[in-house]
Amino acid sequence: MLRRAGLLLLSGLSLSTLAHATVQQDPRVASLGTCRLSGGGTLANCRIGYRTFGRLSAARDNVVLIPTWLQGRSEDWIPLIGHRGYVDTTRFHVIIVDALGDGHSSSPSSLPEHGRAAFPELSIADMVTSQYRLLTEKLDIKHLHAVVGFSMGGMQAFEWAVRYPTFLDRAVPIAGSPRLGAFDHLLWTAHLQEIENGLRAGIPPDSIWAQLARLEALLIQTPAGVNRLTRDSVMAATSAQASIYRKAWALEDFAAQLKAIRQHDVSRAFGGDMARAAKAVRAQVLIVHSPDDHMVTSGPAVEFARMIRARALLIPSECGHIAIFCQQDTLAAAVRAFLQ
Amino acid sequence: MLRRAGLLLLSGLSLSTLAHATVQQDPRVASLGTCRLSGGGTLANCRIGYRTFGRLSAARDNVVLIPTWLQGRSEDWIPLIGHRGYVDTTRFHVIIVDALGDGHSSSPSSLPEHGRAAFPELSIADMVTSQYRLLTEKLDIKHLHAVVGFSMGGMQAFEWAVRYPTFLDRAVPIAGSPRLGAFDHLLWTAHLQEIENGLRAGIPPDSIWAQLARLEALLIQTPAGVNRLTRDSVMAATSAQASIYRKAWALEDFAAQLKAIRQHDVSRAFGGDMARAAKAVRAQVLIVHSPDDHMVTSGPAVEFARMIRARALLIPSECGHIAIFCQQDTLAAAVRAFLQ
Repeated sequence: MLRRAGLLLLSGLSLSTLAHATVQQDPRVASLGTCRLSGGGTLANCRIGYRTFGRLSAARDNVVLIPTWLQGRSEDWIPLIGHRGYVDTTRFHVIIVDALGDGHSSSPSSLPEHGRAAFPELSIADMVTSQYRLLTEKLDIKHLHAVVGFSMGGMQAFEWAVRYPTFLDRAVPIAGSPRLGAFDHLLWTAHLQEIENGLRAGIPPDSIWAQLARLEALLIQTPAGVNRLTRDSVMAATSAQASIYRKAWALEDFAAQLKAIRQHDVSRAFGGDMARAAKAVRAQVLIVHSPDDHMVTSGPAVEFARMIRARALLIPSECGHIAIFCQQDTLAAAVRAFLQ
Repeated sequence: MLRRAGLLLLSGLSLSTLAHATVQQDPRVASLGTCRLSGGGTLANCRIGYRTFGRLSAARDNVVLIPTWLQGRSEDWIPLIGHRGYVDTTRFHVIIVDALGDGHSSSPSSLPEHGRAAFPELSIADMVTSQYRLLTEKLDIKHLHAVVGFSMGGMQAFEWAVRYPTFLDRAVPIAGSPRLGAFDHLLWTAHLQEIENGLRAGIPPDSIWAQLARLEALLIQTPAGVNRLTRDSVMAATSAQASIYRKAWALEDFAAQLKAIRQHDVSRAFGGDMARAAKAVRAQVLIVHSPDDHMVTSGPAVEFARMIRARALLIPSECGHIAIFCQQDTLAAAVRAFLQ
């Protein structure tokens, strides 16, 4: 739960906002048997971790699915939901699902050390397909009120709206993207090279995580946001973040999800034609983004919003990518209103 | 000369702007004997490369000094001067000087391979002191009309104005800084770690340069600037830039100048009190910066401008740090006017 402590410190937020969620039960884990992946590989013994909150209505029609962000885990979303959060758990049955490639779901680190390199190529579409199977095969959910996701979760929300158009009524991609811009692609390539070059050369994981935390700190909020802090506190926060990541994450898992993000493109099933992908969408969509987001740039999401005539809530923010935390009150109120 | 080809490609500029400067004579090199450095080290056989343009007046009162940017060489500034450039060479005698730590001046790579690690700690102040000695001891220049510099050259321009206040009439730091912001410090720390971790682990220099070029491309202009290009052209430009750097630069030189930038602080001689440092300034100063610069953030320069009541020309630009190239016509006209 406190894995994003450094990040939050960096954004000037108090850790106390997370305190109520520090005691957690374990997530539930569903076994889907074999998952066939879009890249041609298969995952035997494919497992999906998830947590549920709020009462499922008798008609089973009040379900909101929340897929996790990059290396996020289902517990990380808990402080963001609730009566004053992004999804009101007094009205909705919320299922937070660990995206494939992370710790509670099947991931490279769930394999024995020597077998991690054999983890097959993963896509955002594979995450979404596994979630569809979880809902329909294991939880007897035939329809979603909404999919809400942040960052890589927002990418999954776009994918949901295009891939299973009649399965959901609403989608809220927050700082998500239907396909990465050139900048984002370069950014994730830099992250991936950091890991791959580092592992190949035997750089200690501590040093690799330290450099990844620096890259993250440089781009997760705006330079102006970072410059509100002192040099020492930025260095301390970055170092704390690296230490948290090193303990909680595996470099191979991070790389697997990075690769999925890098090749993410909801138009792939439409020959790369985004206009055709957009025509498939049936859900009402609210796109929430900051034009100052330097980690998932807003251009592709805003363009997609125009194609599907969706509402785009664009919030200038020095917090950039993490406006979801810094401006939680404003943004959560807008998302709650959209979901009613 | 074409070392910044990839960078310019990335910023959408034509290489033809550089064509007139491709044939160059070698720089002149002055020997200063021993340079005593502020970190306590000494450089025996301390050499400074420089080039001159335009006629020196009989009164020797029309000299404009231009120190180079990070890993820039004196020839890199040639396309930026002239009748329509930042400094009019029909009026001024321009001396472009290679900052200590780069190829034409003393640098780690000017030492034998096995001795490079022994290159002493270098500061921006050391660069400026060596330039003062070049002018006074070798070129019989007793006064400067102006110091004009970009990026690390702008840091040297600030240092000149504080350290030798009566020696110059004007200073024009373009995208420079009197002391780095927290963001900049993190950015250069990431660059330095990339080099130091990489060299220690035996990562091939090609891969290190590739990663440095990615870092540069992510921050040298705004995300919006990068997103004007296609994914393929960004990857191609970044790769071209890496290849140019690898051929022309040495990682050890880059690291030496990075360290100088990282600890740069014109207030050091004033106990860290920037207000006192500002009081030392006698020159008229024109600060040119973009608020969208993500490589040398503008805050410290703008604050210094306020302290010394200097003019600050702030140009919003998607080009960010390289607005000096993208908006050369506008900016050069303003600098030329200020120098008259």
